Amino acid sequence: MTEAQPTGVIDFNCDMGESFGAYEMKLDKEIIKYVSSINIATGFHAGDPNWMRASVELAAAHGVAVGAHPAYPDLAGFGRRAMSLNPSEVKNAVAYQVGALSAFTGRGGLQHVKPHGAMYNRAVVDAEEAGAIIDAVHEFDPSLIHVVLAGSKWEELALGAGVRVAREAYSDRAITPEGTLVPRSEPGAVIHDPDEVVARVVKIATQGKVTAVNGDEIPFVADTICLHGDNPGAVEIAIKVRQALDAEGVEVKPMSEIVA
Amino acid sequence: MTEAQPTGVIDFNCDMGESFGAYEMKLDKEIIKYVSSINIATGFHAGDPNWMRASVELAAAHGVAVGAHPAYPDLAGFGRRAMSLNPSEVKNAVAYQVGALSAFTGRGGLQHVKPHGAMYNRAVVDAEEAGAIIDAVHEFDPSLIHVVLAGSKWEELALGAGVRVAREAYSDRAITPEGTLVPRSEPGAVIHDPDEVVARVVKIATQGKVTAVNGDEIPFVADTICLHGDNPGAVEIAIKVRQALDAEGVEVKPMSEIVA
Amino acid sequence: MTEAQPTGVIDFNCDMGESFGAYEMKLDKEIIKYVSSINIATGFHAGDPNWMRASVELAAAHGVAVGAHPAYPDLAGFGRRAMSLNPSEVKNAVAYQVGALSAFTGRGGLQHVKPHGAMYNRAVVDAEEAGAIIDAVHEFDPSLIHVVLAGSKWEELALGAGVRVAREAYSDRAITPEGTLVPRSEPGAVIHDPDEVVARVVKIATQGKVTAVNGDEIPFVADTICLHGDNPGAVEIAIKVRQALDAEGVEVKPMSEIVA
Amino acid sequence: MTEAQPTGVIDFNCDMGESFGAYEMKLDKEIIKYVSSINIATGFHAGDPNWMRASVELAAAHGVAVGAHPAYPDLAGFGRRAMSLNPSEVKNAVAYQVGALSAFTGRGGLQHVKPHGAMYNRAVVDAEEAGAIIDAVHEFDPSLIHVVLAGSKWEELALGAGVRVAREAYSDRAITPEGTLVPRSEPGAVIHDPDEVVARVVKIATQGKVTAVNGDEIPFVADTICLHGDNPGAVEIAIKVRQALDAEGVEVKPMSEIVA
Repeated sequence: MTEAQPTGVIDFNCDMGESFGAYEMKLDKEIIKYVSSINIATGFHAGDPNWMRASVELAAAHGVAVGAHPAYPDLAGFGRRAMSLNPSEVKNAVAYQVGALSAFTGRGGLQHVKPHGAMYNRAVVDAEEAGAIIDAVHEFDPSLIHVVLAGSKWEELALGAGVRVAREAYSDRAITPEGTLVPRSEPGAVIHDPDEVVARVVKIATQGKVTAVNGDEIPFVADTICLHGDNPGAVEIAIKVRQALDAEGVEVKPMSEIVA
Repeated sequence: MTEAQPTGVIDFNCDMGESFGAYEMKLDKEIIKYVSSINIATGFHAGDPNWMRASVELAAAHGVAVGAHPAYPDLAGFGRRAMSLNPSEVKNAVAYQVGALSAFTGRGGLQHVKPHGAMYNRAVVDAEEAGAIIDAVHEFDPSLIHVVLAGSKWEELALGAGVRVAREAYSDRAITPEGTLVPRSEPGAVIHDPDEVVARVVKIATQGKVTAVNGDEIPFVADTICLHGDNPGAVEIAIKVRQALDAEGVEVKPMSEIVA
Repeated sequence: MTEAQPTGVIDFNCDMGESFGAYEMKLDKEIIKYVSSINIATGFHAGDPNWMRASVELAAAHGVAVGAHPAYPDLAGFGRRAMSLNPSEVKNAVAYQVGALSAFTGRGGLQHVKPHGAMYNRAVVDAEEAGAIIDAVHEFDPSLIHVVLAGSKWEELALGAGVRVAREAYSDRAITPEGTLVPRSEPGAVIHDPDEVVARVVKIATQGKVTAVNGDEIPFVADTICLHGDNPGAVEIAIKVRQALDAEGVEVKPMSEIVA
Repeated sequence: MTEAQPTGVIDFNCDMGESFGAYEMKLDKEIIKYVSSINIATGFHAGDPNWMRASVELAAAHGVAVGAHPAYPDLAGFGRRAMSLNPSEVKNAVAYQVGALSAFTGRGGLQHVKPHGAMYNRAVVDAEEAGAIIDAVHEFDPSLIHVVLAGSKWEELALGAGVRVAREAYSDRAITPEGTLVPRSEPGAVIHDPDEVVARVVKIATQGKVTAVNGDEIPFVADTICLHGDNPGAVEIAIKVRQALDAEGVEVKPMSEIVA
């Protein structure tokens, strides 16, 4: 189902613009130095028109590509709470938010769409919702890249729909022998050792492989890797990962230069 | 300052899509029969992604042109309360909302932008805010039409900026000898007699003139006339106005076919 | 687990104050004539401070008892969408809303609390959420009545907690032989025939019994019956039910005069 | 118009609980060590049910008195933007928010009400709004203390209404010879030198006097002094002020132990 990407090149993406009104996420200006794509919050879980413009300008100043980061309408819960929107509500909510961000990037200024939090998590397991998101993004602009979880049914659905797809891996999440995420409820689901995180990213980017929880080395294709940007430790890891990739000669580029 | 429009042709616009979630504005399906352009609420004072799509579809079914109706972020006050956003906040709020609606109309599907309620009222008297709105709309798409109050400084500003302008008249508001609105606080500001309302619309559309409060007949150029759509009486007036214009041979067309 | 209530007396409750800003639910003034208790929306799914005061005044004018109708924070979805708040979030959301309404009823002016929509539906099946609601209400004022679905685990929990409980029945919902609601997904779950609705209410109020879906007549104890108030047909049913109960000599009273 | 307070005793108040969802104001736990009263945000400009409970618990742990900090409904603008609510809207908004907070403090757990931001600023200059706030607070509980700006018409109104009043001074704002605030638009309106700030607070607390902008020493009676808590420098000033007052033998107590 998955095609190999050209190893030796990878995108780093990070959620950004999650400030709101008087609440500023101050690490944005730091973490942006280490990524090639950012996902800008679009007002439903975080972000507002003023921060959206500021984030687009920050991206331009750093030569970083911009995507939309739509979410459920849940500011109080930061979009992290499951919410039973039906597929047409999801489709319309995504369209609204992507359109809103496009006012700040201008025509052609949007590279991708990556759903946030609970909407992302449900797309991984719920084909109807995944389909609604794919519809909304494709309807808005067929050239936009759909960021999906590598190894998920959602990836399959998007590839099957013939849209542009960027397969995303998480640098700090354990993988089953089948190539899917180990659920957070299981021990060892999250990898805390920075050196191991770095080693895993390097292996994905250089060999297209990952060490699964049972110790098997399995093929694992990812176009973009998600870096967290919400704590100082995250910045440290970002720096280490970039240094390790430089040492290996891996190029870091926006996903639009990687996926077909 | 104003150029004559070709009399014998006029646009009718109406606010629409002001439903929200479970709250439905049921007259939309009635009033749309009598207008040529609608202003769709974009989620800040009313409207939501689902109603926006429904309203765009309703407009398509009736061959009516679509514009955005951005507002201050005041759902509880229906956007009618003055709110001291600074110019850059206004610009960004307008951009966000216009962009959001464009996701439902598709590229090129938007005809115009008309601010709502308190934002409109302030644009009439506050050049900074008017300028912020003009900037936002022009930045989004230079071909969009800016709806402004006929006879206002805002009209002057927009014409001076070289953007496409549709001058709006209110069918039920008295006009000073200088061609501006009689403030609502003064007696006679609102015209309640349906026959007089109809007669005034006909005179604007056929002669480009209006009878001012002092009885003088003055030149008054309007490209579009605002019909209210929020009460059953409004529908009655809409029907009468359309019949009277038909009898006079006035064509009713979307503003994009009227303004340069 | 359930104690018999004195038959021959029943409370009618209805959701009310679900207007919001410019959106008015116009049937409130009609349906209030036929109920003894109302559940006032508290701003999270509907309602706002102005409508809350107006609804409290309407209740006073009609001698109707007032309760709070807290919900998930989902204005766009009218509180009908499931939302994964954790128990402490539920507890705090209920406390906030009950406290807010108490500002308009004054000390001692609140009779009961009945959760709305998706929050109510989850309390029926999720003991943790039901417990959080019971905690919040009891903490606010131990004399408040907890409205719970008759025949549910939630009823058991509330009775076990030693709080004041009003068991609620729905006039138009079929009941299993075990005394619980037939799920909406099953055929026959909702009773549409007004005469049958009336007959069922009369049997509950006079005999403490209901005819289950299998035809068995089973004991069914309810202190309060929910009337819908959101469509003209609902008003018709309310009138018929009241007439039938009058004819049978059943007294309609606020739940505080019925439950211990 | 003003009565002298017993000098040698003063209250320090600080805005608190202005976190919202995932956005945490981390200095709350620091600044609370130096104040005797806190104003807890109530969800309209900041704060939410979960942070409200946490802030009430924080206050209890530090033996600090709690008040409500109601605001205009403007989360995106942090309640700092003027907004034309009419007096009955203001009254109802204040009632709603005070009631909501009372659910977390319990009966009798509320000491005072201090409006936030734009609502406070308008109460200083608009007697109708000031009256609406006084009405709302008094209606909720006649024993609550009304925090008002020292030297304002609002103070006069509140004293005239016979309610409990705490006159508030700002530690870093210049005062006219008439005892009112120098508008922020004038040079020297804000005092930046920490030592001068400290000296002014000491003079108010020990002598009931202030040095006006023209150099005159004038009587200036304040029951409570507002400390900012939103930046690290604010904590430094709080510490210095407390040390200086200790050295002068001034007692710092909640306003309920100071005002009649």
